[in-house]
Amino acid sequence: MLPPVCVLGLGLVGGSLLRAAAPLTTAYGWSRSEETRAAAAADGYTVLDDLDGALAQAAADDALIVLAAPVTAFRGLLQSINQAAPTALLTDVASVKGVVAQLVAEVAPEARFVGSHPMAGTQHSGWSAGSATLFAGAPWVTCLDEESELETWLPIARLALAVGSRVIPADAAAHDLAVARVSHLPHLMALALAQVGADGGELALSVAASSFADGTRVAGTRPELIRAMTENNASALISALDDALAVLGVARASLASTGSLQKITTGGHDARMRFESRGTDLIAVELSGEDLVEELLSVGSAGGYVTAIRGDGDDVAVDAFYPDPDVED
Amino acid sequence: MLPPVCVLGLGLVGGSLLRAAAPLTTAYGWSRSEETRAAAAADGYTVLDDLDGALAQAAADDALIVLAAPVTAFRGLLQSINQAAPTALLTDVASVKGVVAQLVAEVAPEARFVGSHPMAGTQHSGWSAGSATLFAGAPWVTCLDEESELETWLPIARLALAVGSRVIPADAAAHDLAVARVSHLPHLMALALAQVGADGGELALSVAASSFADGTRVAGTRPELIRAMTENNASALISALDDALAVLGVARASLASTGSLQKITTGGHDARMRFESRGTDLIAVELSGEDLVEELLSVGSAGGYVTAIRGDGDDVAVDAFYPDPDVED
Repeated sequence: MLPPVCVLGLGLVGGSLLRAAAPLTTAYGWSRSEETRAAAAADGYTVLDDLDGALAQAAADDALIVLAAPVTAFRGLLQSINQAAPTALLTDVASVKGVVAQLVAEVAPEARFVGSHPMAGTQHSGWSAGSATLFAGAPWVTCLDEESELETWLPIARLALAVGSRVIPADAAAHDLAVARVSHLPHLMALALAQVGADGGELALSVAASSFADGTRVAGTRPELIRAMTENNASALISALDDALAVLGVARASLASTGSLQKITTGGHDARMRFESRGTDLIAVELSGEDLVEELLSVGSAGGYVTAIRGDGDDVAVDAFYPDPDVED
Repeated sequence: MLPPVCVLGLGLVGGSLLRAAAPLTTAYGWSRSEETRAAAAADGYTVLDDLDGALAQAAADDALIVLAAPVTAFRGLLQSINQAAPTALLTDVASVKGVVAQLVAEVAPEARFVGSHPMAGTQHSGWSAGSATLFAGAPWVTCLDEESELETWLPIARLALAVGSRVIPADAAAHDLAVARVSHLPHLMALALAQVGADGGELALSVAASSFADGTRVAGTRPELIRAMTENNASALISALDDALAVLGVARASLASTGSLQKITTGGHDARMRFESRGTDLIAVELSGEDLVEELLSVGSAGGYVTAIRGDGDDVAVDAFYPDPDVED
């Protein structure tokens, strides 16, 4: 049931997707880097030497084209797609979804586009860092809204499921608000903490143990990668950052006046416990019928996810995990 | 060369110290909890049934008494020590050093006291969580200042070395400033991040991946333990928190006005790289002679640590790692 897949960009995510998709369907890739193309070809994968050739092949195959290059390269890639395969089935794997959807609507308006975001990664990058199992068990957001065409969403969700992900349906704005809080803000907090710690000098760095090491780990990510995701999600991130500044500011005032950190310690601990127990109230459900798009969006916003898609056309049925109404919060 | 050791409090750190010290010297412990005493005795360690008996034994042995109970219990323990063993060799293992030194000076002023802080721990607590290897390779701050008596510091540093730690000499105020930045602030950042993330709702929690999981890990620590360390180090923590609020506030303003996060991403990344490469410029040195206290303090403030103590009295020599002046920053 999977379409052929054409992956543009063979770094950590694109390279992993080419590896994971190759046993499942016709899959081929292209990278701007000659070195990367050579490495992927040497590992036995089908690699096209030039972008125009890759897009001509994708148009001939009616392949799903996956934008897996840095977001800064998207405009140029979309211009080429709009020339060579204007109505292609298209997705991307960037960590921001609103700006990408706007760009596609502007540059390749006829493409059958559904944005997506596999929440899988490491601090490493490049073809050599990839793995066919990168997506196993990882959340993979696939964008939907109330106007979405299900036949565009289905093949992209099927690919995400086939490589082992949990598919989380969400609209682009909800995705961007969520990742601002649980991915982009953690990067800013780690960067600030690293700087304040290092400003304490050599003694501070030599006594730093696991709380500092874990709290600053993602500050080791390349600055240009952090900037690409955070700066492209500015308004959602500013809102999350303001909330963090408010929580820390209240704690600071309380510590300075009454000496108590009761509020932040209990509030933060309760929140961490919610995170650790997330998903424990989910039960299996089957979704189908006319309101499927709406039901899929409910699954995502309630913390659930899709595990399988069966059938096709009007007979499609979706297996999902959804919160059990009998479980109290 | 180790004195007998009397450990008061047999939780994670005290229980680990009793286990680690028992093969090296006469070592015995006491806990307020009958259940803990029974568990430690059942594991083959020497446990005294009551505090007065433990302190009488320590006075008779001229043992090193280790305060390993919660800081909130210190005043009562110190009152008993001042009755039963007023001039005892004394240390503690709390994560704040200034307030403990003040309390000892007030309640047990004749004690030969050197504060210390083994930087080892897990999220778990209690006798059963302890291990004889907890201190292996971990930093252990032992307090010194320019008025310190070396003969009080030496047995405590020898014990820390004997159980496998790197001994970091530092004065109490420098310790408290350092841990505010690399231990107490990371806890507040984790708590704030957990709360802002959870406020994003179920979708946010279900898409949260390793950056959120790592950045909030220590928010899972029991709130009363976080409060005990952070609230007892309020002035140093407020200063660190103000620095963090300033870094985040500048980033927020820059993102809102120019859209750029260049400053925080490069500053934070450079700081994390400094942390990852800490200690790589150290070379072995031998310290001895009249200025030993001053030299030990230089070792600690420069990011170095003590690895061995040889000899005794006027002939004592200390092996340490110290930054190589030929290595550029």
